Amino acid sequence: MRTNDILTGLESGEIAALARAISLVENQRDGFERVLAALHKKIGKGSTHRIGITGPPGAGKSTLTEQLVRAYRERGLKVAVIAVDPTSPFTGGALLGDRIRMESVSLDPGVFIRSMATRGAQGGLATSTEEVADVLEAFGFERILIETVGVGQTELDVAATAETTVLVLVPESGDGIQTLKAGVMEIAELYVINKSDRPGADKVKQEVEVMLGIRRGNAFAHVRPHHGRADGPMGGGVVKNRPSAHQPISPSEWEPPVLMTVASRGEGIAGLVEALEQHHQYLERTGKLAERRKRRLAARTRDVLNRAIRQWVWDETKAEDLLARRLDDVAAGTRSPYEVAAEVLEQVRNGK
Amino acid sequence: MRTNDILTGLESGEIAALARAISLVENQRDGFERVLAALHKKIGKGSTHRIGITGPPGAGKSTLTEQLVRAYRERGLKVAVIAVDPTSPFTGGALLGDRIRMESVSLDPGVFIRSMATRGAQGGLATSTEEVADVLEAFGFERILIETVGVGQTELDVAATAETTVLVLVPESGDGIQTLKAGVMEIAELYVINKSDRPGADKVKQEVEVMLGIRRGNAFAHVRPHHGRADGPMGGGVVKNRPSAHQPISPSEWEPPVLMTVASRGEGIAGLVEALEQHHQYLERTGKLAERRKRRLAARTRDVLNRAIRQWVWDETKAEDLLARRLDDVAAGTRSPYEVAAEVLEQVRNGK
Repeated sequence: MRTNDILTGLESGEIAALARAISLVENQRDGFERVLAALHKKIGKGSTHRIGITGPPGAGKSTLTEQLVRAYRERGLKVAVIAVDPTSPFTGGALLGDRIRMESVSLDPGVFIRSMATRGAQGGLATSTEEVADVLEAFGFERILIETVGVGQTELDVAATAETTVLVLVPESGDGIQTLKAGVMEIAELYVINKSDRPGADKVKQEVEVMLGIRRGNAFAHVRPHHGRADGPMGGGVVKNRPSAHQPISPSEWEPPVLMTVASRGEGIAGLVEALEQHHQYLERTGKLAERRKRRLAARTRDVLNRAIRQWVWDETKAEDLLARRLDDVAAGTRSPYEVAAEVLEQVRNGK
Repeated sequence: MRTNDILTGLESGEIAALARAISLVENQRDGFERVLAALHKKIGKGSTHRIGITGPPGAGKSTLTEQLVRAYRERGLKVAVIAVDPTSPFTGGALLGDRIRMESVSLDPGVFIRSMATRGAQGGLATSTEEVADVLEAFGFERILIETVGVGQTELDVAATAETTVLVLVPESGDGIQTLKAGVMEIAELYVINKSDRPGADKVKQEVEVMLGIRRGNAFAHVRPHHGRADGPMGGGVVKNRPSAHQPISPSEWEPPVLMTVASRGEGIAGLVEALEQHHQYLERTGKLAERRKRRLAARTRDVLNRAIRQWVWDETKAEDLLARRLDDVAAGTRSPYEVAAEVLEQVRNGK
């Protein structure tokens, strides 16, 4: 299918064209940037909410995601799920089990589910995920759930592409919260203690709240903004704004709520949906949505340019040849990687 | 301290110069590439073994690392530890607790311990870690332990810079092994079930062995080489070669052993040291050490060049200005990031 056909197909709302557009974008095949450029004017209208769902393995993220899909469908919203698995070098295989559980919702034409496995190139997954989300938003999905596996840097980068990030924990996470590290805890605007019918749920909730409390104190002074989200959760602020609490709501600040769910039984899902809507409204009301979007677009344009430059250097210049000729010297220790890189850069700059 | 002074200091074995060289390299300050280029001829002589230690939080990696340090010191070897914490946006703070536990060994001049926190740039941590390891190797450390936190893609990339990777699990990991995903399980050449005095240790050992067994079968067909380690653990092979087992050893293949330790009491450490030496000898004997080193150097030279090119584009061309001028259009949807990137690339190519 040529890119023109894909664009026409997307225009008429064909699911087959959507699937092809996503494959094209995910694999960065010829024409993917043309498709994304054409769709760009359709996104950022504010009717789509991108929600990142992250947390340690076994926290029940897939079940929670499935319940959110159902809840949004009941409200008449079109929902897409991007399941990102950065740790597996297998093509999506490991996620299959989880995906199958979603079959019940995947027959609904208002639901679209897509798995993305890691790609070879370092650091490219967050940008690719964002680009796939763009395609889905342009196609008309109103809620895009981006579910990641694990809590490494890649997952945080992926989660940071969402407008609202949910960190899912379980009662058993209690001992691990200290080891989860501040960077993981602070990525989120919403905390969910899932499987909260198990012992220890209240304790973990309390621990998370204490940790969030710390952020109001001294810890703040040491915070560096997280890469890729310059306005970060820090910008979100700290004054009271709990859903279903009758406290005065500050118009400009957001305190991340800690919610309890039992996703397998659908408990607490309505509250989570409500909290998500509140955060989205908060972002819109305060102008942070537009601001965050603009910063993400600037970061994206940088990423796209870096990618384009890498492509140019490796595909269109003689950098690869020169590198291959120098490799024996590098291995023998007579030339260093730095000298070779400088030599190649000089050639590239001189247009050779 | 200027780079010349640093190089002279390194030459005479001054610890202060070492600390400064590492800071210079880690933060990519002016002259860092000159220092690395000068040290390049001193590395890769085969007397240094780089060992990656990875695994989920709470597996006892720090304690195990400390015990390995002691064991190597008893054998008269100089040991360095690089503790990499990719998830924390705080400057090394979160690791402090663990580091303090290592104080007992850190007063020994034959031991050098360094924490590295995440850096802003995506994908840069593995290269930075490798460069710091180069400095340590050039300085004369004979064992370099690279300890990572967590099991995300960044951690796998960092672990892949080592010659031998150890995955540390605990009896409680049993339920999680399935969710750890194939990519994580297959990164290692050595498996350690730490805290093996707890219930379930034998079961986890068995599960890991079963999973490794799967690799001998069909799963192999689907394996893609892991990024950054083209000869990967897959190249290591599968025929019997257990330490302390009297089975015929194939000269060209390696079966990852699954060892039991109780690091807090020093149990199983001697066996781990022995297995690590065996793997190092195996890599040397089969020529895989030189082969792996050459591939890593090729990958490194590419990374260094990509970094140099990014630096050139953003610092020395007018890319940033043009990007800033186009950002409002991008946010308004009238230009896409792809059109802007193409425009900037065109300027860069034309030497503007």
